[in-house]
Amino acid sequence: MEFTVGQIAQLVQGTVAGDASAIIRSAAKIEEGTPGCISFLSNLKYEPFLYTTGSTAVLVDESFEPKKQVETTLIYVKNAYTAFTLLLEEYQKATRQARRGIEQPCHIGQTSSIGEDAYRGAFSYIGEYCTLGNRVKIYPNTYIGNNVQIGNDTVIHPGVRIYDNTIIGNHCTIFANSVIGSDGFGFAPQADGTYRAIPQLGNVVIEDHVSIGSNTTIDCATMGSTVIRSGVKIDNLVQIAHNVEIGKNTVIAAQTGISGSTKIGEQCVIAGQVGISGHISLANHTKVGAQSGVGKSIKKEGLSLSGSPAYDLSAHLRAQVHVKKLPELEKRIQNLENERIRSDKNTHQL
Amino acid sequence: MEFTVGQIAQLVQGTVAGDASAIIRSAAKIEEGTPGCISFLSNLKYEPFLYTTGSTAVLVDESFEPKKQVETTLIYVKNAYTAFTLLLEEYQKATRQARRGIEQPCHIGQTSSIGEDAYRGAFSYIGEYCTLGNRVKIYPNTYIGNNVQIGNDTVIHPGVRIYDNTIIGNHCTIFANSVIGSDGFGFAPQADGTYRAIPQLGNVVIEDHVSIGSNTTIDCATMGSTVIRSGVKIDNLVQIAHNVEIGKNTVIAAQTGISGSTKIGEQCVIAGQVGISGHISLANHTKVGAQSGVGKSIKKEGLSLSGSPAYDLSAHLRAQVHVKKLPELEKRIQNLENERIRSDKNTHQL
Amino acid sequence: MEFTVGQIAQLVQGTVAGDASAIIRSAAKIEEGTPGCISFLSNLKYEPFLYTTGSTAVLVDESFEPKKQVETTLIYVKNAYTAFTLLLEEYQKATRQARRGIEQPCHIGQTSSIGEDAYRGAFSYIGEYCTLGNRVKIYPNTYIGNNVQIGNDTVIHPGVRIYDNTIIGNHCTIFANSVIGSDGFGFAPQADGTYRAIPQLGNVVIEDHVSIGSNTTIDCATMGSTVIRSGVKIDNLVQIAHNVEIGKNTVIAAQTGISGSTKIGEQCVIAGQVGISGHISLANHTKVGAQSGVGKSIKKEGLSLSGSPAYDLSAHLRAQVHVKKLPELEKRIQNLENERIRSDKNTHQL
Repeated sequence: MEFTVGQIAQLVQGTVAGDASAIIRSAAKIEEGTPGCISFLSNLKYEPFLYTTGSTAVLVDESFEPKKQVETTLIYVKNAYTAFTLLLEEYQKATRQARRGIEQPCHIGQTSSIGEDAYRGAFSYIGEYCTLGNRVKIYPNTYIGNNVQIGNDTVIHPGVRIYDNTIIGNHCTIFANSVIGSDGFGFAPQADGTYRAIPQLGNVVIEDHVSIGSNTTIDCATMGSTVIRSGVKIDNLVQIAHNVEIGKNTVIAAQTGISGSTKIGEQCVIAGQVGISGHISLANHTKVGAQSGVGKSIKKEGLSLSGSPAYDLSAHLRAQVHVKKLPELEKRIQNLENERIRSDKNTHQL
Repeated sequence: MEFTVGQIAQLVQGTVAGDASAIIRSAAKIEEGTPGCISFLSNLKYEPFLYTTGSTAVLVDESFEPKKQVETTLIYVKNAYTAFTLLLEEYQKATRQARRGIEQPCHIGQTSSIGEDAYRGAFSYIGEYCTLGNRVKIYPNTYIGNNVQIGNDTVIHPGVRIYDNTIIGNHCTIFANSVIGSDGFGFAPQADGTYRAIPQLGNVVIEDHVSIGSNTTIDCATMGSTVIRSGVKIDNLVQIAHNVEIGKNTVIAAQTGISGSTKIGEQCVIAGQVGISGHISLANHTKVGAQSGVGKSIKKEGLSLSGSPAYDLSAHLRAQVHVKKLPELEKRIQNLENERIRSDKNTHQL
Repeated sequence: MEFTVGQIAQLVQGTVAGDASAIIRSAAKIEEGTPGCISFLSNLKYEPFLYTTGSTAVLVDESFEPKKQVETTLIYVKNAYTAFTLLLEEYQKATRQARRGIEQPCHIGQTSSIGEDAYRGAFSYIGEYCTLGNRVKIYPNTYIGNNVQIGNDTVIHPGVRIYDNTIIGNHCTIFANSVIGSDGFGFAPQADGTYRAIPQLGNVVIEDHVSIGSNTTIDCATMGSTVIRSGVKIDNLVQIAHNVEIGKNTVIAAQTGISGSTKIGEQCVIAGQVGISGHISLANHTKVGAQSGVGKSIKKEGLSLSGSPAYDLSAHLRAQVHVKKLPELEKRIQNLENERIRSDKNTHQL
């Protein structure tokens, strides 16, 4: 798709300084731009690139004043970053073909219903007693069990598996090959050393505006529900165990695992490869650093944790510095001990 | 589904104290119960909830004597926890619709066979020379390669991929999107810096009563077999490399990885996010704490390990406490050193 | 399949000492061989097994001279390990049935094309504007979006999901259920505490001879490309975030995660369960030990790192030894302090 600089300026309510008829075909970072690209400048750390960029046009803040001659065309807007994001969103809407209709063969149970303007891809499977909303997109090769509810405008990407009784809200996105609602990992040890599966009768409830990455797993509750509250964003390869509850607008990065029955507060930020024990709770606004292991409940809001076991971030970083110095520390102790022995000897000699 | 309290009492061989005609529709924890639910009381720590629960009925041990007035109906049984589990199992059997028969379109090679009362879901694929047992369930969108054997009563959930020559026993469950038998990660470095794939000709053998979670990967052996012994329970997102052997009734939690050719003993318990090096062995009854890294063989049975590198759990916990105190320790050394300098000065002044 | 020892000797240009008519059906390690197997002896550490092996024939180096009587038939070759690998490759070619042709039902967009001698399995899905090369194999139950390019001789295993605009080279293998090109994890925080998805408009570019394991995820770039250079080998359950670049011939073991915009050099070796922060770079020939966390750029080539945070391997190992000794170190400080107090008392008493 092609746009002129003028058309783009109109869309973002900007003012053009330069060639309004130049053609834009793609977007790029200011330091990587080539002719036909549009970029933006917001953080002035990147200003030097403005004078060397290959991009045809650059969005800049109204308040921006160039310090040197600029070759590229500028579009002055209220907020360059916001305008650029808006452009990308419009571009994405236009390029991601609006999938609609039904591709055959696909399977839907006779007792299930789906709303208007929906998409069902080839080889997708929807069981019985399901209710799917308007504009829902069910990509090819997906599986949806029985008695599943999915709200309006939710997109289920290829290879996603949704088990029986799952409830998913509006405007959610679940990326490829994630599994929602398979059995929680619960086994009762028997006298003969074997384990017996504890029936997992609960479900998963996902509220509105939730995003779930690829190859992530969210187990159903043993009883009751595993709950992902509104606005939660979950990355790839994350494990959410049975009966976990994730609070509103919490963000969880890739390869993190949360054990059974743990409750994560609202607006938390959990970095990648974190492990969180079962049956604990994290207060709202908790931040957990990458690869940390959280073994105890955090009751105070807004703490930043790090390490395994995790504790207060700044204390952790201080201690880590000392771990590196341990060989030196021991040497110093050794010196003191030697000193003492010498001094003792001296004393004895007195 | 609905049952009366009386029907339930009959099933669990219990005695009703209260309204035997009350209707039960669901199960819940005693602290979360609502009208229509049945709960249980086993650990007396939860006894206070008995007097406030919203559940319509509660299973209690024969020996139990309430300390206050109880509003809810009680069912006295030999063992409340066991009776409750039995109820859940019966409920699960009744609600998880017994899938049977063949949904079209699905694919099965002409040289493959499948037993009685089996289920093959839509868009499932079974290659050539496969032998599948009675009551096997092959869910929609699964792939089974060539020359695969699957025993009786085994359930293959949606999106599972089973490579050629895999052997799976009876009463196994493999949850959604797990991959069994893809190539081990073996590459021979070449003189020019490239790597050449080492052919992976072995297979995976899974014995009886094994449970494998979602999005887990078990690689085939380079030669011979990767072996998962009877009764093993594996959680989600676990990695089992080529030629690994997991002993009977061992339990492995989510996101753990076991490197090539390692042998894990029987009745081990491996927590989540653990890494275990290749070509080592762990004795029977070894316990490994979450996020540990095990780099050496463990020859003594029954040890509890923790840390990365992992060592004896109690020593690890002691050391971790000290890591937090490191800044303080260094201060103390500093004090001693200052002391020495002062004392040296004094000596010199004498 | 069966071969005589003589046929095998001919294939590997070797000389038989023993029964050239003996039948070989399989391959095994020398210590695990049974009649009908062929093994090899290269590392002389394994020589004792030569005199006890059950294998029917063993490949040995031309220069090898047995120290005892050998029961098994020997095949003398230039390099026993290389000859054995060649045999395995031939065996693999012969046993992995060359899949070809089209299994119905499968889906391909009218605007897409696929080369000669290709395979498209049942329930595979190929969108619009795709170009697939010769001898490409698209296994059952795979999904390929729109505008995807795949080179010659590349194999896409069952359940792989390839998003729009992905470019894959020649001779690549992507194992089951991996996801290539789903959205990078980028969200802009809003004033009301919610997050807004940042459009992910880039793609993934995979060069030639790349191998990607099972259940691995590689996200598309926000803008531009996430790039996997020629010869890279990636294991199972690995996470590669948006805009990452992996240099030529780098090897990445299972469950490792690499955060957004990080650049890994050529010929690096990253062990399992490693975490690498975003927006950093690792020099060529860097080695990173298992479970390490790399938080800073590594500019010097050829370093070996370990630990979390990772630093020079030998320093890390030294420090780890000291962590275990921490309780003892504190005791020694305590002793020194007590000593001082006593000594102070003495001084005061003087």
